Amino acid sequence: MSVVYDRVALIGLGLIASSMAHAMRRSGLAGEIVGTARSTETRDIARELGFCDRVVDSAAEAVKGADLVVLAVPVGAMGAVAAEIAPELAQGATVTDVGSVKQAVIEAVGPHLPEHVHFIPGHPLAGTEHSGPRSGFAELFDNRWCILVPNGSDAKATARLTRLWEGMGAHVDVMDAPHHDLVLAVTSHAPHLIAYTMVGVADDLSRVTDSEVIKFSAAGFRDFTRIAASDPTMWRDVFLTNKDATLEILGRFTEELFALQRAIRTGDGDHLHDYFTRTRAIRRGIIEAGQDTDAPDFGRSGQHDKA
Amino acid sequence: MSVVYDRVALIGLGLIASSMAHAMRRSGLAGEIVGTARSTETRDIARELGFCDRVVDSAAEAVKGADLVVLAVPVGAMGAVAAEIAPELAQGATVTDVGSVKQAVIEAVGPHLPEHVHFIPGHPLAGTEHSGPRSGFAELFDNRWCILVPNGSDAKATARLTRLWEGMGAHVDVMDAPHHDLVLAVTSHAPHLIAYTMVGVADDLSRVTDSEVIKFSAAGFRDFTRIAASDPTMWRDVFLTNKDATLEILGRFTEELFALQRAIRTGDGDHLHDYFTRTRAIRRGIIEAGQDTDAPDFGRSGQHDKA
Repeated sequence: MSVVYDRVALIGLGLIASSMAHAMRRSGLAGEIVGTARSTETRDIARELGFCDRVVDSAAEAVKGADLVVLAVPVGAMGAVAAEIAPELAQGATVTDVGSVKQAVIEAVGPHLPEHVHFIPGHPLAGTEHSGPRSGFAELFDNRWCILVPNGSDAKATARLTRLWEGMGAHVDVMDAPHHDLVLAVTSHAPHLIAYTMVGVADDLSRVTDSEVIKFSAAGFRDFTRIAASDPTMWRDVFLTNKDATLEILGRFTEELFALQRAIRTGDGDHLHDYFTRTRAIRRGIIEAGQDTDAPDFGRSGQHDKA
Repeated sequence: MSVVYDRVALIGLGLIASSMAHAMRRSGLAGEIVGTARSTETRDIARELGFCDRVVDSAAEAVKGADLVVLAVPVGAMGAVAAEIAPELAQGATVTDVGSVKQAVIEAVGPHLPEHVHFIPGHPLAGTEHSGPRSGFAELFDNRWCILVPNGSDAKATARLTRLWEGMGAHVDVMDAPHHDLVLAVTSHAPHLIAYTMVGVADDLSRVTDSEVIKFSAAGFRDFTRIAASDPTMWRDVFLTNKDATLEILGRFTEELFALQRAIRTGDGDHLHDYFTRTRAIRRGIIEAGQDTDAPDFGRSGQHDKA
């Protein structure tokens, strides 16, 4: 593949940005990758690992001369970063982000940016439960979706950013910000909050010890703990900035949960059986769409060899 | 390893029983394995796959001369099976089960059994989202826990059943039935109901299409769908028979969820951040205890090679 951007500035060097650096290098998509992060420790690790061509000490410095700027910091920090970099942005540069919500990012970042840049918010739906610059890897986006929210931006600039994401292995979809935030509330934000809650309940229950919860977690609980181990700061910001859609889905969830609880209490086995049969079809759809593995237990490593 | 039981009768030939057959053969733990299942189709598949030495047409026939009888049918069917096999049980035989609840099984099965058998309920905490005789494999129990509920049974008979489970790769723990049912409500039953609910909500939401839910499931949702794809009949019976403990945990869950919803609504970021930080520790405990993998995304097969 050929170079899509001559100089890419990565602001923030966690899981997503470091994986982008690895993925861009894998396919030669960027002439130069310049990175920065707020903490000295993160910058030092990035220098040690060498996934950027240059690591600089400030966001303002990083964006100089870049034709693509990627905001990869927690959603709550994006406004301040946008204010800092705005005076240094090159004419015709594209500014994008990788935040998990889109309306709040547009509101926080948009007003700071000069007219002479293209602002195309984005969100790669990929991640693991690990965070930080050491957690990145080139294959993170392979066969995953990246949603772009062009929000009236120039079509050529959007097509160029699409080429970058496709070059990093992703499929690209385009939608508006409110729909993005609702879809993500369903597929990600509400599930994460529910997983956090269930793990918290288990930890809290004095008659069942933590060591019992841990020992016997293979019975189902452990599937929840993976996503409940994700970065706390990132998730705090997601819930605070996608408040309405998340609360709406949680309201629907509670309603359904109460209906199932009542079926348990009244012994309505048919209701339960019908409900559980319906949910199997969704799982089949996900496997057929190539978004998960059909191997038992997600093919957890070694499950079939040892365990 | 040497033979622990001369003849093992497996009543029901789904995931657990077929895996037991494979695991007993792997280590030569049973002189003969006799299996049966209610449906002709299941018996035919078991004959085709050959994981039993003999497949017979009725439970009464299967238990004749067996020194271990394993009830591996849905919890709601165990009482009827116990009534059917009771007259045929050999003097000194051990009867066990693999059901996910223990108090209800003791109530349903116990009264039917003659005094001359040892009744030692059991529950291997292992499984996958697949069901049926084709889904079994010898490694299912390796490094997993099996809980036995001796309930006053003979210590020698319990030690012998423990040897069988250890021979099949499991660790054995002993507890009383009420505690078992509470521990499982936390680690398995409530998480399953919550996963079923979340998947049902996603399926129900008309403004987000099923295909969007499926496409974008890698953002977190898909972790829920694995356990929500489990056998509907088994899970209906679990909830109907472990009603009190499950409803108690769901009550606690709802309380915590409401507190987090309020923190979102009022913008209390500190509460959210503290909560999410605490849940990370549980995940670490599970990995350290060898009950899950630390590979990103559970080491979903190919995640690091392709995806």
